Amino acid sequence: MMKTCVMGASGYTGAELIKILVTHPTFDLSACFVSHNSADAHKGVGEVHPQLAHIQANDAHKNALLMQPLADEQVEQIGHEHDIIFMALPHEVSHHWAHLLRNTSAKIFDLSGAFRLSDTNTFERFYGFKHAYPELMQQRVYGLAEWHYQQIQNAKQLIAVPGCYPTASLLGLKPLMHSALLDLEKMPIINAVSGVSGAGRKASMTSSFYEVSLQAYGVLGHRHTPEIEEFANSDVIFTPHLGAFKRGILATITAFTSEHVTEQDIDQAFVDAYANKPLVRLCSQWPKVDQVAHTPFCDIHWAFDKDKRCVVVTSAIDNLLKGAASQAVQCANIMCKLDETTGLIHA
Amino acid sequence: MMKTCVMGASGYTGAELIKILVTHPTFDLSACFVSHNSADAHKGVGEVHPQLAHIQANDAHKNALLMQPLADEQVEQIGHEHDIIFMALPHEVSHHWAHLLRNTSAKIFDLSGAFRLSDTNTFERFYGFKHAYPELMQQRVYGLAEWHYQQIQNAKQLIAVPGCYPTASLLGLKPLMHSALLDLEKMPIINAVSGVSGAGRKASMTSSFYEVSLQAYGVLGHRHTPEIEEFANSDVIFTPHLGAFKRGILATITAFTSEHVTEQDIDQAFVDAYANKPLVRLCSQWPKVDQVAHTPFCDIHWAFDKDKRCVVVTSAIDNLLKGAASQAVQCANIMCKLDETTGLIHA
Amino acid sequence: MMKTCVMGASGYTGAELIKILVTHPTFDLSACFVSHNSADAHKGVGEVHPQLAHIQANDAHKNALLMQPLADEQVEQIGHEHDIIFMALPHEVSHHWAHLLRNTSAKIFDLSGAFRLSDTNTFERFYGFKHAYPELMQQRVYGLAEWHYQQIQNAKQLIAVPGCYPTASLLGLKPLMHSALLDLEKMPIINAVSGVSGAGRKASMTSSFYEVSLQAYGVLGHRHTPEIEEFANSDVIFTPHLGAFKRGILATITAFTSEHVTEQDIDQAFVDAYANKPLVRLCSQWPKVDQVAHTPFCDIHWAFDKDKRCVVVTSAIDNLLKGAASQAVQCANIMCKLDETTGLIHA
Amino acid sequence: MMKTCVMGASGYTGAELIKILVTHPTFDLSACFVSHNSADAHKGVGEVHPQLAHIQANDAHKNALLMQPLADEQVEQIGHEHDIIFMALPHEVSHHWAHLLRNTSAKIFDLSGAFRLSDTNTFERFYGFKHAYPELMQQRVYGLAEWHYQQIQNAKQLIAVPGCYPTASLLGLKPLMHSALLDLEKMPIINAVSGVSGAGRKASMTSSFYEVSLQAYGVLGHRHTPEIEEFANSDVIFTPHLGAFKRGILATITAFTSEHVTEQDIDQAFVDAYANKPLVRLCSQWPKVDQVAHTPFCDIHWAFDKDKRCVVVTSAIDNLLKGAASQAVQCANIMCKLDETTGLIHA
Repeated sequence: MMKTCVMGASGYTGAELIKILVTHPTFDLSACFVSHNSADAHKGVGEVHPQLAHIQANDAHKNALLMQPLADEQVEQIGHEHDIIFMALPHEVSHHWAHLLRNTSAKIFDLSGAFRLSDTNTFERFYGFKHAYPELMQQRVYGLAEWHYQQIQNAKQLIAVPGCYPTASLLGLKPLMHSALLDLEKMPIINAVSGVSGAGRKASMTSSFYEVSLQAYGVLGHRHTPEIEEFANSDVIFTPHLGAFKRGILATITAFTSEHVTEQDIDQAFVDAYANKPLVRLCSQWPKVDQVAHTPFCDIHWAFDKDKRCVVVTSAIDNLLKGAASQAVQCANIMCKLDETTGLIHA
Repeated sequence: MMKTCVMGASGYTGAELIKILVTHPTFDLSACFVSHNSADAHKGVGEVHPQLAHIQANDAHKNALLMQPLADEQVEQIGHEHDIIFMALPHEVSHHWAHLLRNTSAKIFDLSGAFRLSDTNTFERFYGFKHAYPELMQQRVYGLAEWHYQQIQNAKQLIAVPGCYPTASLLGLKPLMHSALLDLEKMPIINAVSGVSGAGRKASMTSSFYEVSLQAYGVLGHRHTPEIEEFANSDVIFTPHLGAFKRGILATITAFTSEHVTEQDIDQAFVDAYANKPLVRLCSQWPKVDQVAHTPFCDIHWAFDKDKRCVVVTSAIDNLLKGAASQAVQCANIMCKLDETTGLIHA
Repeated sequence: MMKTCVMGASGYTGAELIKILVTHPTFDLSACFVSHNSADAHKGVGEVHPQLAHIQANDAHKNALLMQPLADEQVEQIGHEHDIIFMALPHEVSHHWAHLLRNTSAKIFDLSGAFRLSDTNTFERFYGFKHAYPELMQQRVYGLAEWHYQQIQNAKQLIAVPGCYPTASLLGLKPLMHSALLDLEKMPIINAVSGVSGAGRKASMTSSFYEVSLQAYGVLGHRHTPEIEEFANSDVIFTPHLGAFKRGILATITAFTSEHVTEQDIDQAFVDAYANKPLVRLCSQWPKVDQVAHTPFCDIHWAFDKDKRCVVVTSAIDNLLKGAASQAVQCANIMCKLDETTGLIHA
Repeated sequence: MMKTCVMGASGYTGAELIKILVTHPTFDLSACFVSHNSADAHKGVGEVHPQLAHIQANDAHKNALLMQPLADEQVEQIGHEHDIIFMALPHEVSHHWAHLLRNTSAKIFDLSGAFRLSDTNTFERFYGFKHAYPELMQQRVYGLAEWHYQQIQNAKQLIAVPGCYPTASLLGLKPLMHSALLDLEKMPIINAVSGVSGAGRKASMTSSFYEVSLQAYGVLGHRHTPEIEEFANSDVIFTPHLGAFKRGILATITAFTSEHVTEQDIDQAFVDAYANKPLVRLCSQWPKVDQVAHTPFCDIHWAFDKDKRCVVVTSAIDNLLKGAASQAVQCANIMCKLDETTGLIHA
């Protein structure tokens, strides 16, 4: 068993991490942390997340299911005490705590955006603060599990778990890029709709039930655009939307192929990419958001119009799972040389 | 034309009042007020309520569609300048401003709970502050339009527009009470489910999209219980629930009849009560919430089990309209000797 | 008053037409028809559409609110008896009945797809049957109200009311085309999400509540594609989606501009197109579907990235109103030289 | 391993059974059956239920995940070949197939209503056909797992798995009955709201997305009323409602206590009933439907008004799990002397 903790356990992603970890056969959840001034400090997991009310701490870790407040000065010590740390924290906090943990031997899976973008100027423009730890950035591995398997296995310490939109977008787009089927004179266009859990567990007018209704936002300026562009290795137009549902993302990708590309080429690109990837399902029909909700899967389907040389791909994930918590655990499985589905599919 | 204003124009009920008033043939919307420290002060109606963006002020009232901040010391003057005032304000503010308006000739339609409960001890227990104006309470008329038509016509100045739950509950229950069909040894049981707009336009975890899911609340202690009991003239058990929809209330009323009551007696009670009431529709099927959403109607249906001597009534309204804004205008129509549907049905 | 009837009164669009017409000051609803084998034949409007239960026929037309079955052989006679006919019928039925009505003086507003596509080969490919009346097609006017005002005014008899997706798409795209701002080497990409009412009033697994969840469909082959292409005068990629909401469409249009186009050029294009069009609202924020639900408006907002020379427009309508019933009435208003908003905004 | 099959594998409950069984450590899913004329015959599980597309049959049972059509004459043979049979079938089919299986040694868990009601007259009145197998009825055990644990362990062959509404209702009501706290002169009142999956996987207007909106149905005549009454051992008023959500039931139970009953008595009754029952969670707050969706739990909370001698209990379950599939497996676990949570909580 590997000693594991969650930092940022009171959010929606934190809840999903806890739910996975309490049944994981190798990762042993020994502590749940929240920031030292959190309103949820000292509460039990079941009090903050009623759906988890049945979870009981075992004797060895009787505080494992209490939300313990954590201050900067304790972080390094926590790192020394744990094998694996999941950080579901605000960008600024992850940015700083990853630095505080740099001399520990803990493997770190950061679900924030703090270490996703290689270019620190781009980072500053989209995240609003200067990146102070470029050396950490250099050694981090971007945890898009199906595409960076080898790098994740060999990572030094820090995995930047991808954003939810980039996960859905890249899993749909990369097979076409990788097989060099696209005419990149015409930028790929990605329209995506996310459920409201993407906004996190906090009160706001934007995510108030009465206010939520399908709407674009962050158009031509969302911080997931440079993340998609870096890891797709192409400019794209990315337009996110908020949808009136709780969980899930559907990304619709429209791209144009080079001359002479055939439907078979496209099919082959997806099969090559995912034939041995158990958490990507190539579907025979257009996926619905709800068929991946509460699952660790990415479901993909596509169509091709050879006259217009246009391919349309849709890709569906649960934003809290494949777009966050389950992909983080998938990365941890890979880095620990476990089967990548361990604790994610109970078969 | 009668000069009309809305105090509390930035809330959801305020929006509905504005929408009705700009097309009302007799009430002329001349001003929209918000409290003096509102974040919406000086904004246009269309900016606060995008669905109303097409509404244009006419030349005569060029500020009619600006959210004007209003302080206590201006309230009386506003009262002198208007014939009709709709107050969609917090209870405490309505309580005080109604007092400030007492010497004006404005007709006042208060949509808060400040003047609904005759008993000031009960009021204090359920609203958390002491009622300072019992003399206003004595002259106010409770504006349950179908049942207090005469009193509304003859009211001195102040109408306490009923709460949303009491409107749905009382319209379903009162015909049975009025026709003396019930065995009141067994208290009527009212279960009701409200859409989230009932919580008002503000950020809160409770009304966050991800958090909302069918749930009871305020059980055995909701402030609408004494309101229902006073105007039903009976003790009741009232259990409210929050439902995952935007608008509407469905109240399900279970009551027990005296011996020898027949199905015909019950049918007759409803027909007698509402045959000439254009805004109550006696339905041939169980009403759905959505069939009354965006309408001023209350839809009612019932069934009777003579062996158990039990009658079940369901009653559906739009909580923002028949449960608030449209009933307020209906009361104003009645008080001004207009047809009670004026401006509410465009026939 | 102009004598008016609705053919196809039992569907969702039929209900909206009835609701508008019973309050329209000039169009007098005198009959509601369903096909002769409809299960709703002889039912009252309120029985089929509970939300309309309060509507009362006036004495002059005591059958106006009964669903009368109509057979082919009666159609011409009905045409002679009415000034205005709204046809909310299956494509095949509209196709035939419009022909049966050709020698009457009735103005016909066809909400089906039977007369939208000028090219009969394209029609046959997308609608699955051969167009038998090319001469009717030649005289019909396509009723995109904001763009074909003059032609609608001068139409001989038949208006082909646009489809819901084309309405949302074209209103967002045409200003850019009309002002010649686009680089059409790169096809405009239109992603749109429709509420389930678009599928009509019928039982099907696809629109079953448990099954509905955001999903693409009809990708690269939807029959609204050639309609958009004909009236945009450009090839496009159009990807429709089904969303888990009842009413509304949000279309997101991504297009690329010619060199030297500025943000001001784009703004001006929209202002020029819609400054005097009361049913299109140029919004200061990204429109939500719910802000146009139950309204006759199209709400539009856009953004421009000059580095990528990319403009993103979103356009929201109620699919049953601006996408069907209210646009049909808007066309009828225009053809009858009434203000185009007559009966649609009650101001 | 025990050889297990699902009869009626194409419905929503069938899908949940399959999902549980493929990860169950002791029950080995070896076949999925549908009725011999099913449109889903010969399809794969992933084709019928896309959320299960990742499930792979193991070599031993290569047809385990095909929907095999099953005719009456094959049923007995299937019984001889299996240890455990879950029947998620129409009432009439279960009624007949349970009879066909009577001489096999298979343990049968019937999720239909065919064997729930002891009184065959009541059965016929509510189910519309005559019960032909009273001798089977006599030996069957009603599988309300928390209350009939001993009987389930000792059952001869057939478990009648409770209905969804009765499960939620009885788990909330029985502690009060069992501790003899109620004044049964006043019937308990149960209002419940179910998600649409309760209506099963089939096309119908009633469960069409556009039509679904909170509404009562089956008032004073629902077939779950006699089931609740038999196993509560009391008359009740039960009013079901359809709610606009996919999964879950919330039951709100209003009952009146005998004199001198205290809040402590009530608390004690629930603690006594469920202290050692891992699938019932006594909550510190009013449960929401979504906190039990996709889980095998029943969440319960209550409040007491000593002046009115009224107790209100709410009880939430996932109708497809604790109200059907997971309770069936819970019963099978108990009957097979396994821990009752086996395969239901992955801890």
